[in-house]
Amino acid sequence: MSKVMIPWEERPEGSKEVMWRYSHNPVIGRYQIPTSNSIFNSAVVPFEDGFAGVFRCDNKAVQMNIHAGFSKDGIQWEINEQPIEMVAGNTDLLHSDYKYDPRVVFIEDRYWVTWCNGYHGPTIGIAYTFDFKTFHQCENAFLPFNRNGVLFPQKINGKYAMLSRPSDNGHTPFGDIYLSYSPDMKYWGEHRVVMKVAPFTDSAWQCTKIGAGSVPILTEEGWLMFYHGVINTCNGFRYSMGAAILDAEQPDKVKYRSQPYLLAPAAPYELAGDVPNVVFPCAALHDEERVAVYYGAADTVVAMAFGYIKEIIEFVKENSL
Amino acid sequence: MSKVMIPWEERPEGSKEVMWRYSHNPVIGRYQIPTSNSIFNSAVVPFEDGFAGVFRCDNKAVQMNIHAGFSKDGIQWEINEQPIEMVAGNTDLLHSDYKYDPRVVFIEDRYWVTWCNGYHGPTIGIAYTFDFKTFHQCENAFLPFNRNGVLFPQKINGKYAMLSRPSDNGHTPFGDIYLSYSPDMKYWGEHRVVMKVAPFTDSAWQCTKIGAGSVPILTEEGWLMFYHGVINTCNGFRYSMGAAILDAEQPDKVKYRSQPYLLAPAAPYELAGDVPNVVFPCAALHDEERVAVYYGAADTVVAMAFGYIKEIIEFVKENSL
Amino acid sequence: MSKVMIPWEERPEGSKEVMWRYSHNPVIGRYQIPTSNSIFNSAVVPFEDGFAGVFRCDNKAVQMNIHAGFSKDGIQWEINEQPIEMVAGNTDLLHSDYKYDPRVVFIEDRYWVTWCNGYHGPTIGIAYTFDFKTFHQCENAFLPFNRNGVLFPQKINGKYAMLSRPSDNGHTPFGDIYLSYSPDMKYWGEHRVVMKVAPFTDSAWQCTKIGAGSVPILTEEGWLMFYHGVINTCNGFRYSMGAAILDAEQPDKVKYRSQPYLLAPAAPYELAGDVPNVVFPCAALHDEERVAVYYGAADTVVAMAFGYIKEIIEFVKENSL
Amino acid sequence: MSKVMIPWEERPEGSKEVMWRYSHNPVIGRYQIPTSNSIFNSAVVPFEDGFAGVFRCDNKAVQMNIHAGFSKDGIQWEINEQPIEMVAGNTDLLHSDYKYDPRVVFIEDRYWVTWCNGYHGPTIGIAYTFDFKTFHQCENAFLPFNRNGVLFPQKINGKYAMLSRPSDNGHTPFGDIYLSYSPDMKYWGEHRVVMKVAPFTDSAWQCTKIGAGSVPILTEEGWLMFYHGVINTCNGFRYSMGAAILDAEQPDKVKYRSQPYLLAPAAPYELAGDVPNVVFPCAALHDEERVAVYYGAADTVVAMAFGYIKEIIEFVKENSL
Amino acid sequence: MSKVMIPWEERPEGSKEVMWRYSHNPVIGRYQIPTSNSIFNSAVVPFEDGFAGVFRCDNKAVQMNIHAGFSKDGIQWEINEQPIEMVAGNTDLLHSDYKYDPRVVFIEDRYWVTWCNGYHGPTIGIAYTFDFKTFHQCENAFLPFNRNGVLFPQKINGKYAMLSRPSDNGHTPFGDIYLSYSPDMKYWGEHRVVMKVAPFTDSAWQCTKIGAGSVPILTEEGWLMFYHGVINTCNGFRYSMGAAILDAEQPDKVKYRSQPYLLAPAAPYELAGDVPNVVFPCAALHDEERVAVYYGAADTVVAMAFGYIKEIIEFVKENSL
Amino acid sequence: MSKVMIPWEERPEGSKEVMWRYSHNPVIGRYQIPTSNSIFNSAVVPFEDGFAGVFRCDNKAVQMNIHAGFSKDGIQWEINEQPIEMVAGNTDLLHSDYKYDPRVVFIEDRYWVTWCNGYHGPTIGIAYTFDFKTFHQCENAFLPFNRNGVLFPQKINGKYAMLSRPSDNGHTPFGDIYLSYSPDMKYWGEHRVVMKVAPFTDSAWQCTKIGAGSVPILTEEGWLMFYHGVINTCNGFRYSMGAAILDAEQPDKVKYRSQPYLLAPAAPYELAGDVPNVVFPCAALHDEERVAVYYGAADTVVAMAFGYIKEIIEFVKENSL
Repeated sequence: MSKVMIPWEERPEGSKEVMWRYSHNPVIGRYQIPTSNSIFNSAVVPFEDGFAGVFRCDNKAVQMNIHAGFSKDGIQWEINEQPIEMVAGNTDLLHSDYKYDPRVVFIEDRYWVTWCNGYHGPTIGIAYTFDFKTFHQCENAFLPFNRNGVLFPQKINGKYAMLSRPSDNGHTPFGDIYLSYSPDMKYWGEHRVVMKVAPFTDSAWQCTKIGAGSVPILTEEGWLMFYHGVINTCNGFRYSMGAAILDAEQPDKVKYRSQPYLLAPAAPYELAGDVPNVVFPCAALHDEERVAVYYGAADTVVAMAFGYIKEIIEFVKENSL
Repeated sequence: MSKVMIPWEERPEGSKEVMWRYSHNPVIGRYQIPTSNSIFNSAVVPFEDGFAGVFRCDNKAVQMNIHAGFSKDGIQWEINEQPIEMVAGNTDLLHSDYKYDPRVVFIEDRYWVTWCNGYHGPTIGIAYTFDFKTFHQCENAFLPFNRNGVLFPQKINGKYAMLSRPSDNGHTPFGDIYLSYSPDMKYWGEHRVVMKVAPFTDSAWQCTKIGAGSVPILTEEGWLMFYHGVINTCNGFRYSMGAAILDAEQPDKVKYRSQPYLLAPAAPYELAGDVPNVVFPCAALHDEERVAVYYGAADTVVAMAFGYIKEIIEFVKENSL
Repeated sequence: MSKVMIPWEERPEGSKEVMWRYSHNPVIGRYQIPTSNSIFNSAVVPFEDGFAGVFRCDNKAVQMNIHAGFSKDGIQWEINEQPIEMVAGNTDLLHSDYKYDPRVVFIEDRYWVTWCNGYHGPTIGIAYTFDFKTFHQCENAFLPFNRNGVLFPQKINGKYAMLSRPSDNGHTPFGDIYLSYSPDMKYWGEHRVVMKVAPFTDSAWQCTKIGAGSVPILTEEGWLMFYHGVINTCNGFRYSMGAAILDAEQPDKVKYRSQPYLLAPAAPYELAGDVPNVVFPCAALHDEERVAVYYGAADTVVAMAFGYIKEIIEFVKENSL
Repeated sequence: MSKVMIPWEERPEGSKEVMWRYSHNPVIGRYQIPTSNSIFNSAVVPFEDGFAGVFRCDNKAVQMNIHAGFSKDGIQWEINEQPIEMVAGNTDLLHSDYKYDPRVVFIEDRYWVTWCNGYHGPTIGIAYTFDFKTFHQCENAFLPFNRNGVLFPQKINGKYAMLSRPSDNGHTPFGDIYLSYSPDMKYWGEHRVVMKVAPFTDSAWQCTKIGAGSVPILTEEGWLMFYHGVINTCNGFRYSMGAAILDAEQPDKVKYRSQPYLLAPAAPYELAGDVPNVVFPCAALHDEERVAVYYGAADTVVAMAFGYIKEIIEFVKENSL
Repeated sequence: MSKVMIPWEERPEGSKEVMWRYSHNPVIGRYQIPTSNSIFNSAVVPFEDGFAGVFRCDNKAVQMNIHAGFSKDGIQWEINEQPIEMVAGNTDLLHSDYKYDPRVVFIEDRYWVTWCNGYHGPTIGIAYTFDFKTFHQCENAFLPFNRNGVLFPQKINGKYAMLSRPSDNGHTPFGDIYLSYSPDMKYWGEHRVVMKVAPFTDSAWQCTKIGAGSVPILTEEGWLMFYHGVINTCNGFRYSMGAAILDAEQPDKVKYRSQPYLLAPAAPYELAGDVPNVVFPCAALHDEERVAVYYGAADTVVAMAFGYIKEIIEFVKENSL
Repeated sequence: MSKVMIPWEERPEGSKEVMWRYSHNPVIGRYQIPTSNSIFNSAVVPFEDGFAGVFRCDNKAVQMNIHAGFSKDGIQWEINEQPIEMVAGNTDLLHSDYKYDPRVVFIEDRYWVTWCNGYHGPTIGIAYTFDFKTFHQCENAFLPFNRNGVLFPQKINGKYAMLSRPSDNGHTPFGDIYLSYSPDMKYWGEHRVVMKVAPFTDSAWQCTKIGAGSVPILTEEGWLMFYHGVINTCNGFRYSMGAAILDAEQPDKVKYRSQPYLLAPAAPYELAGDVPNVVFPCAALHDEERVAVYYGAADTVVAMAFGYIKEIIEFVKENSL
């Protein structure tokens, strides 16, 4: 990952924020492809001499689907107008009612995509690709209802490991983060709770539900994971972003977890849109020192925020719940 | 209707939208009359050498009422400061707790107004006028609870025909479009379902409830009707606009119905206001080729969108649910 | 109606109740026909030299339908094993998703049946019969959602008159009684509110919803109508029976209405069953002096209660809300 | 299983029921062990020269736990006063917040117990025993939230197979039956929907949620499985019992499924108790011809019903949804 | 209190229950006065050479009110047909929308009655009487919404002390017990939480809400108080009875609290009635050794249970939450 | 109060509004102190040669607390970065789970602060200070659940008087204003209802809940109090501001109450933010003629509006509900 320059913009002068917004946000507009109503909650990854990504594009019938896209610099994106067509991986069950909120991760020899997959309700779909052209769909990881499935970028104790958030079939008013293991990306087990919502009095922005955001980044302190937290205000859900550090060997152990949020809706494109007041991280590009987080804003567009990994870790440790 | 020039603005250069917003939206502001909190969800019609309309004006006590108004060009409106006072038509039951969301249509020799009328809950009020000065109130069409009553502009098989949406007494989380007939604008029957909400996976923007918007326009393909559809997001209802084409002879038969929306909340005056994320069509002025739709935005102001009838029909046929 | 002896049992010795239960209740058991899960909320009427009736029989798939039945004495009933098959009356719309809670009334030359009819939700179905063998289905009276449609036994001011209770599509937690008129049993209008739920502090047994029960009986004081009222306890709805007296000429005027109930769930077959705590009147046989009310008990069986009309009227007048 | 005489009572004279109740129901009373508030929803299996079982005993603090028990005849039961203490099977995660609604099945060389296990919400616990004295707990099969996990009595295509019903954390108002496979009783996958709730108009008793009941019995027609279905009345859930026949090779294919119920609450011990109106099958003893179903009644006691397998299959085929 | 013989019946032979039901329950039937629909949740106290009480009698309009009554033996009761008429005590605010669930206690020189009083919602009404003929109403203790106000039988640290349960205006799905003090029965303060609902996994019968029942009895271990606890089953609330021992000096300190219930709905008159599955204690007569608890059953009748104080205290201490 | 110049800006030219916004709103931004997520719903008061205030600052963990602040001109504020630390006043119960929505008032010799205090749910906290440095916490005024406690600036009939709004523990969908008295700021009683929500048809902006806003100002007409009212739209609560005039001697008597609102969300900082569509007054600075109201906007920032007291009173009298 070190060969590619991640997109980056320095901290604004005078700012003391641990993470700051890109000044040209949003980086992807709602109408960037002809059929789209909105493009948000999308995932990117270094690929060849640039970047590739899987994008949630709701069309103007408000059908949810995922599209592949490519970029040289991580900022200017070419997104395919057609959604991804799956071919059989380890299953013949290719039908899905909808696909949304993708994540992408490279493990060993290929790119794995996970997403919220409509099979009699939301569950976690899995596919792999070598080239972002052909995608091989695999068995759904879990029974419905589940959302926010995020794979670790390497096997842990010889097994694939996935974070997820068991849900219900609607606007789930609860939700904690669990970890599951698989020997083969087909059968999953050893389910363990990782993080639960925080008490209202301790950290209200994450007291209603939480869900894994970006693929965890291995650091000296453990796995750095950006996640979203939700508070239920009298006028609806407000989604903010925090970070947690999970034990490197036993990632169901939370070492630190941010009591304050790192980013919460405050910019105009976060406050208004199809779903107001949403900051929803789905991916993070990083080099040794820096990280660029991609997040959906107001369920409408894609935006970016930046930070120094070391500072973020320091902040989380010093402000741990 | 051909003698009057409808308000019009050409499609913006470079735009491929089937329908586009008026560049000077909103055309009617929230405080256009001294007592108003908001003016929206209103209906206009050609009248004499210009246009007349019936406007929903919520006052600053947030009482809902309908006001008459007049315009030479359909854009600059003079709205009466006093709400409409009804006189007896075919009923003595003139009391109403509130009046909102009017529609207006000319049939044979007079203008008929329908609106959501407060009689122990919302139902469909009916009145006629010849001059937009004296309005004769008639029997409510239906038992409560009902909203969005829209008359066809001519009798069908010798009877008046009205679309409506049976509701409940609150923020109805369901709703389909029905058709009813009357020999005399007093007794109604032959109720038939016309259109139901779409499955979430097919067209989510119209999966929670739908309701007739503008008075249907007779075209070679059948009745062209703009309607609203609603999706229930985690932060509330989002109202968008689609179009359907109903059979000319049997208007309870839907020939085509737009799977994508034609207009959805995206402009600032649609995204923020008393009720964010609302596009709610209530009227359409048209000539042979073109149509100007009047819609309420964010339950706060009146805005306009334009399109070519032929293109709209083509779009609905090619993108039919 | 005077030629037939109504079923009757004298008031139990020592009782001071205005209405009392039949000592052999329930008169119709839940399994009286081979396919039934329950038989309840049913209507009877004098017919030829005995009685006929229309019975709600839910089968063991818990599909709701109505069956004809006959009796010599109003107590021993032969109920057809097959549900009623409709033929076209003034409509071709014969399909219904379900039929339940029938009422029957003789007007002029024929028997009219009304029931809750499944047409995209519950509404009021209408049919007529001369012989309880052939039933001619007519147009549904109203748009959905409606229940408890009860016809008056004669025209009022030259028009058919029907009580009904606008509802929603579920376990409606509200409901008042309205009156509508029709010149022809096809088109309905002149909708007027008749009775609304009582304030909790005045008469809690009828504070959640009310609905017309039996066909009104014309007395010197006006129309005597038995109705049900519902209170929403912490463990569900409790249905009781009261009576109202409506003005003979203008039956939307309530002259008297019972503040206390006349019958409330207390017998074992009313307290336990498919839906505990339900007394639901649907019919009343009467002669000049006496009345026998048929009511569904616990949504499971049919039971009877008796009373003297004069005493009931006196009680309602003296205990009027 | 043929060596042991199953408990049995002949069909009552005159009865035409496909399944009939034991005349001495309930077979296990609510206070059968000193600490119990209720004993219900329990599972039995042939064991040695009689029967063994795992019983849901809620204690008088209304804590839910499972107890082992033994019987010579399947009717007189000795239930251990102490709940089952687990030892480590393929996991060290032995803690559970509660255990309820067990099922038991013999596969190959041992008895497997599944139950609803409290691990941050309900999920499916698994344990095995050889002697009903020592129980070895295994990994939970799934992420929360899940209930009604029922194993097939033999591997299918070389893998263990389990039915379950994904749920939420409360009084789940939805629920369908799914099938999952495992190579090793540790990791699970290949999740397939088997049966969903029935449309209200087709079979209302099973329109709210359904869940697998007894361990499937392999017959010539396929797997015979008793299951429960729920209707949501205005006064709460009513649980009834039906039966389905699943394809022998591909048990996610439903060959037949009973449109009418086989048993629904009607006996006093089913109509009243801690939760009125519940018939909840959890086990079935059978020989070649006959079956004895054990079901929880009113969430309070254990009762039995009998039937001839051939007749049941015939009934389901002829009355299939 | 020692001069009067409390009503008593010995423990049934063979029973090991800590508390047992009176064999002639219910002691007061639902129709014991002519106008009553139900008599339940009532309070009794030694008075002169027998007992007096204040009874909740809902009339047949289901209006809730409290009536005085007298008994020689605590079992045969004469209840006044007319509800209590209040005269002014320390307030002129005598109006109340309803009165229910009374408690009675003798302090110093008079009898104090507390009840749930309707003043723009439920709050705690207070009155005193010397003779159970004239009742002097005082200021409501608290703002709405509150229920289950129970006074201690003596001043604590020089002040009156009252337990209560803050509520909402409906079928409150939450509720804990608080303590408040007053110097003068007019102004109240020093509000402290006493007991909260138990975790579901520890003691589910009291996991939804709890409320003080009988007037606390001073024992060597502290104040013995019977209270009710509620679990929310899928078919409604189930009310059971437990006991707690509060510190004699600082009664907001809970010394012991029963993890198992002492009495839960199981008798027919507790399982069926206006509200099934309710055991609701409101009073306790006692001598040095024994106690007779009066409780409402199924919101319909009054029943009694007996026990030895020493055994009860022992049981609570040994089974403390 | 006459010695200090209140902040002031004249009515904009051409405006006919009774109250108008400050042109430099918001006066306090969301990030004005380093840790804050938002600063809103705050109270100010003349102090020494300028002003002091108590400010609701939610930190970036979205923990709610109150901070002291100072200003020379009422517009430029220095807010302490650390929340207020309480010392014991008339209680030792200093713990609180959260503090929000403060009000401040000077009575006799000191400043009293009231706020929503977290003690097992929201209730009304009380403290006094002489210098805005040391704050002495007193007993909570009421049992939970309560919000919006506002003290009168002088004793009434020799007692302290406080307005409050009994609530529940969540996003309370109801709420009326009550008055309570205390002889000593420790015990409270003589609770009286003051104002209830308005009927929807009369004044919908205040039909869901209302709560006292600023400390009442004594005028010749009585106590002038600004309050908030809430309407529940399909997309959440909308908070607006009105004014009432209470009787000077008996402030539970409402003399006049504004049917139209005085200020409702319309400015961008009111329409978008953490909770869109909120105008929430908490304080009012005034001299003989003029008033400056401080209100929270969108639960995010503090804004100001101005008016002439005489005009406001006149408006309320002429437009009284």
